Amino acid sequence: MANFDLMRRLAQPEGDKIMLLVMDGLGGLPLTADGLTELETAKTPNMDRLAREGSSGLSIPVARGIAPGSGPAHLALFGYDPQVYDIGRGVLEGIGIGLDVDEGDVAIRGNFCTIDAGGLITDRRAGRIPTEEGEKRVELLKDIQLDGIQLQVRAGEGYRFALVLRGDDLHPEIADTDPQATGVAPLPARALEPQAERTAALVNQWLDLAKERLRGQEPANMVTLRGFATDPKLPKYSDVYKLNAACVATYPMYKGVSRLVGMTVIETDTHFSIQDEFDKVAAIWTDYDFVFCHVKYTDSRGEDGNFDGKVEIIEQVDAALPTLLNLNPGVLVITGDHSTPAKYRAHTWHPVPTLLWAPETHMPDRATAFGEREAMTGALGQFNATDLMPLALGHARRLVKFGA
Amino acid sequence: MANFDLMRRLAQPEGDKIMLLVMDGLGGLPLTADGLTELETAKTPNMDRLAREGSSGLSIPVARGIAPGSGPAHLALFGYDPQVYDIGRGVLEGIGIGLDVDEGDVAIRGNFCTIDAGGLITDRRAGRIPTEEGEKRVELLKDIQLDGIQLQVRAGEGYRFALVLRGDDLHPEIADTDPQATGVAPLPARALEPQAERTAALVNQWLDLAKERLRGQEPANMVTLRGFATDPKLPKYSDVYKLNAACVATYPMYKGVSRLVGMTVIETDTHFSIQDEFDKVAAIWTDYDFVFCHVKYTDSRGEDGNFDGKVEIIEQVDAALPTLLNLNPGVLVITGDHSTPAKYRAHTWHPVPTLLWAPETHMPDRATAFGEREAMTGALGQFNATDLMPLALGHARRLVKFGA
Repeated sequence: MANFDLMRRLAQPEGDKIMLLVMDGLGGLPLTADGLTELETAKTPNMDRLAREGSSGLSIPVARGIAPGSGPAHLALFGYDPQVYDIGRGVLEGIGIGLDVDEGDVAIRGNFCTIDAGGLITDRRAGRIPTEEGEKRVELLKDIQLDGIQLQVRAGEGYRFALVLRGDDLHPEIADTDPQATGVAPLPARALEPQAERTAALVNQWLDLAKERLRGQEPANMVTLRGFATDPKLPKYSDVYKLNAACVATYPMYKGVSRLVGMTVIETDTHFSIQDEFDKVAAIWTDYDFVFCHVKYTDSRGEDGNFDGKVEIIEQVDAALPTLLNLNPGVLVITGDHSTPAKYRAHTWHPVPTLLWAPETHMPDRATAFGEREAMTGALGQFNATDLMPLALGHARRLVKFGA
Repeated sequence: MANFDLMRRLAQPEGDKIMLLVMDGLGGLPLTADGLTELETAKTPNMDRLAREGSSGLSIPVARGIAPGSGPAHLALFGYDPQVYDIGRGVLEGIGIGLDVDEGDVAIRGNFCTIDAGGLITDRRAGRIPTEEGEKRVELLKDIQLDGIQLQVRAGEGYRFALVLRGDDLHPEIADTDPQATGVAPLPARALEPQAERTAALVNQWLDLAKERLRGQEPANMVTLRGFATDPKLPKYSDVYKLNAACVATYPMYKGVSRLVGMTVIETDTHFSIQDEFDKVAAIWTDYDFVFCHVKYTDSRGEDGNFDGKVEIIEQVDAALPTLLNLNPGVLVITGDHSTPAKYRAHTWHPVPTLLWAPETHMPDRATAFGEREAMTGALGQFNATDLMPLALGHARRLVKFGA
């Protein structure tokens, strides 16, 4: 991973501005033996020009053969080895649906479930209620109060929700309350370390109140809690890279990961178009050294198996790109966090095409367009995603020489 | 190396079947400045088609610049960093000549030597006797018995042999008995840790009996022992990869390394042809998730400096390949454990051409044939040999996603 001690020692607060444009799940596969990938198929005159002028390569998200989730894949792009910074699911789920998780908070994943008159679980997922039904129940839980504790609760997809406790001396070493079986009652929250006993007692108070409020709300008339976790205390961009960084993303998960590494999260809207996002980048560009901009729909189309749809999103990004190019970034990196080939309908382990354009410092190579197979011939070779930040900083002339 | 904690966490017992075909010492060099390597010279229409359809790359056996032995090179292919799993020479020598070495056994390398009437060494290698002479002496040692200990002894090349002790409470922390000098007597076995004192005493009993039996057998009338070692307790394929794996190899060394990682070693014969080996793979294919098949003679011809002979072996492999292709492996990897260029007559450090063919998941690249220079343009890039297993498992859809 990015060697943070080395970064702290070499990084300077002066240098060129860096723009990191991530198309989620960018990497793809051909549908037929002699076909093209999504990126190779897309008409991308702007990115092709940048690839001709700059350096191409392929980024390995976590390790060869490993398909990552978007959380760990973004951590890697930001320079944090996801095997070292293995962030608790409660935190990812919490930030993933838009909750703030700060140092000392305890974040928890929740599931609605069904209990019978005797309090025994009959369905661990409450009949897989739709999201709207989950949202209605979450409204009932929102005014639960605990002494000295600030509570956030928010609905996720379907029967899922997240809960965050904020207060003094909270600890996340608490066992799941989901018994992983039906015909038994949900477990009480139980501390795994003595320091977490008070937190477990608070969680049990909350569970009692939740049970009262959900009475009669079948099929979602109770909850189980799991994945108790706290802020992972990641080193921050300002500390390790000396960068004043901002995030322009529309999905809570990416905003959350960005906040964890110390970026300022710019206000956006899930209904933003790609052009809206790029306009937002333009609006804040003068205020930051580094801007991360995230495009979600390449991944969504890949997950749907919609090859043509993914091609279209990539073409929309290319069409809007002049908005970013007009800002004259010193370093522009265009990449993905992982591959989501439409052929495969899921995240895969295939290395991700990456383009680094930095007119003052890039090494031109023989790539003639932006695409997987052109990138195989490129100046960056295949590299670990965690090396991307040092590469970008180097090209931005923000790292001093190592040694005399 | 393959991160075994990660593999244990992500590997699933379901997925496509994997075939790993290793041509020992596959990598080569051109004999002349504008010539071709052995693999580039060989007519290999089957492998060339697989390379056109699938992914090529170059595997780095241990580290750049390091020429490995076949033991460590195979460990690396199997995902075990040979610098971490530095297996005692006694064990490799023992398994290398066909002895069983299990947990708790003590394996030892032996050399015949010459002693004079006063018991002082006059030749540490017994005049470099030929293998047949060593074998005759080993026969004399075979019926030595020690109380409560099972003994295996077997001749190696020339003046070398191996000895394995099996019994309760044996320990390998024993200093070499070879004094590394002439004009002095062989050293007694001396425990380096208190727990090994009983084992050292047993070894000294054995040495006394060996000296008696070898009296008058000049020039090989005594032995020295070294490289005391025990089973390295490698993590097993079934544990780390969730694979039910088999090995089809004709040489004891490769069977031994396969056994150490938990593969089932299929019975074969050193006189097997390549076609015989492939027929054996076909015969057992339905019973395993993973089959490793080893071809020895590419390395032998390279060591002999026989360029044309090595080309011919590669062509034999290609001609027999339809037997393997007819089994429809989900993932087929063809590679070598290291390079043995005929030009060099020895193992070298050059990265090894590797072909990964997995029709459902591979990334086609621009390689038009199987060969060193085509592989340089390939989708796999240059990678550490220890990443090969994770890559194969990923392509076999046997690893779940890392994180959310």
